[in-house]
Amino acid sequence: MTVTMPAGVQTARDLTGPAIAGAVGRLSPAVQTVAAYHLGLADAHGMPVSGGGAGKALRPALALLSVRAAGAAPERGVVPAAAVELVHNFSLLHDDIMDGDTERRHQPTAWTVYGVGAAILAGDALLALAQDILLENPPYGVWAARCLSAAVQRLIAGQGADLAFERRDDVAVDECLDMAGDKTAALMACACSIGVIYVGGSASLAMSLSGFGAHAGLSFQLVDDLLGIWGAPAITGKPVGSDLRARKKSVPVVAALTSDTTAGRELAELLAKPEPLTEDEVGDATALVEAAGGKEQIETMADAELASALGCLAEADMPEDVRAEFAAIAEFITARQW
Amino acid sequence: MTVTMPAGVQTARDLTGPAIAGAVGRLSPAVQTVAAYHLGLADAHGMPVSGGGAGKALRPALALLSVRAAGAAPERGVVPAAAVELVHNFSLLHDDIMDGDTERRHQPTAWTVYGVGAAILAGDALLALAQDILLENPPYGVWAARCLSAAVQRLIAGQGADLAFERRDDVAVDECLDMAGDKTAALMACACSIGVIYVGGSASLAMSLSGFGAHAGLSFQLVDDLLGIWGAPAITGKPVGSDLRARKKSVPVVAALTSDTTAGRELAELLAKPEPLTEDEVGDATALVEAAGGKEQIETMADAELASALGCLAEADMPEDVRAEFAAIAEFITARQW
Repeated sequence: MTVTMPAGVQTARDLTGPAIAGAVGRLSPAVQTVAAYHLGLADAHGMPVSGGGAGKALRPALALLSVRAAGAAPERGVVPAAAVELVHNFSLLHDDIMDGDTERRHQPTAWTVYGVGAAILAGDALLALAQDILLENPPYGVWAARCLSAAVQRLIAGQGADLAFERRDDVAVDECLDMAGDKTAALMACACSIGVIYVGGSASLAMSLSGFGAHAGLSFQLVDDLLGIWGAPAITGKPVGSDLRARKKSVPVVAALTSDTTAGRELAELLAKPEPLTEDEVGDATALVEAAGGKEQIETMADAELASALGCLAEADMPEDVRAEFAAIAEFITARQW
Repeated sequence: MTVTMPAGVQTARDLTGPAIAGAVGRLSPAVQTVAAYHLGLADAHGMPVSGGGAGKALRPALALLSVRAAGAAPERGVVPAAAVELVHNFSLLHDDIMDGDTERRHQPTAWTVYGVGAAILAGDALLALAQDILLENPPYGVWAARCLSAAVQRLIAGQGADLAFERRDDVAVDECLDMAGDKTAALMACACSIGVIYVGGSASLAMSLSGFGAHAGLSFQLVDDLLGIWGAPAITGKPVGSDLRARKKSVPVVAALTSDTTAGRELAELLAKPEPLTEDEVGDATALVEAAGGKEQIETMADAELASALGCLAEADMPEDVRAEFAAIAEFITARQW
């Protein structure tokens, strides 16, 4: 199944790219270099890259839609859209260090190029910058800053839980879902509602859109976990089975491990092996997750979350073209392309 | 020379400790554990530690004085005082990772106990928390948040420059002073003025106190650099000569290296050795910094900055007892105890 990227995502990139580049331009030279590289605004030699930055600009697209949902022109949403994208990139910079990831968006991660210290600082700077640009725009920028900050705390809580899970072998599915809700869904919920808040729209619209974003974000994370096991390398950009090879406790794996089935117990034994898994064993583990019901259960859950998201969307009062664009993005990010 | 800690510092600790503990209590369990350990609120097993936290509470003391300077009761300054202290600890958590420091306040640094990832997250959480508690207190909390955020950006810029200097051997004294101004003085300037802003005091008072804090903070950093070379281990908590042994480009060293003297050139040769320095060589390097005029020059500079600080203090309109307490703290933190 192939799903085309909604046009609004590219538009969002064109609209918020200059604001992000402008904000990053305020940083001191040493920090700016690292941030610009991470954001795809410059190469590793500091030379500007044309094309307006890396990444899919999904969150800016949602933030701009959120402004339009409240009846305002998308241009008015550039600041909150840029702020959400800065926070997203703060978390990517830091997560790549914590997770030891060496590649992102088909280039070496910032910490591998500039060192851990410089990448920590660049992340810190983007987080502070996101707050700065919102607080410069009172009165509603202040409320937007508080909502964004609440999402940041949940994002940190989720990543903290994720790190803690690595050292535990008794993680339950509910805990995983809470973690994904914090780590992924909270910022999506914020992106979908921050525009309403920023232009002084209605609280009920902001809350419906926050619900939409939370459910769509959770569905997105569940699908991402499924793709981490069954996704084609061409789409995920990772080798087949990479999550299982890394013994990552993604939701389908935890569902299988806690399924009280023979396959689940065999999977637990296999993953408890001290040695690295062979390619055959990765294949076995993949089959065991499926046999234990991990795939089906999480597919069902991802579908249910998408349905809940669309339910929240249906109840909200907004222009129909905006509603359709929100729905298209939710379907795009939760499409199972394998 | 021995200087007694001003009484206001202990009072500040008693007054802001509960607010800091309360704010940290909002964090998710995994992140909270690390933050509480770093702040001295809990030991490495998560058991509460009595006594209200580690650190000298200098910045909270300055923030509370700043509230009193504007004619308000110190209790009204608890929130900005806690916010400044949270930012200070955000930077300590991250700096310890970047600098590879394994000990702080006579205990192992957080990253050595909980891992780099957990310590990055705890720092992130404290930074976001500082903004949260200010933004919860409109209208002036918003202005205070913006001032604090500006200080955070300078702090990041200073640490970024410091990291960049490690890879350069042509650093000039002026660059070092700019770096220290960003890394140390900016947050002190913020601490000294944030209380005025938070209680809606006069802009001219805030600016005078910001100037006081900037000069006192720079003097403090210069004295810290001097203590890093000539300070007694009992006072600095580090072995004699540790900064030279680590070939740290502190201001006295850079002053010596750029002095165009024979001693300066001999120092450059010695520090360019690929091997670790022997104890005798550390002693030689110490003597060379002094012979090249590095000690005298920086002592003069530190004195001049303290005098400028006291000048800013003298011109500001505030109760005399508050002025005296500000002066006592400036003299305490810039005392050369060796």
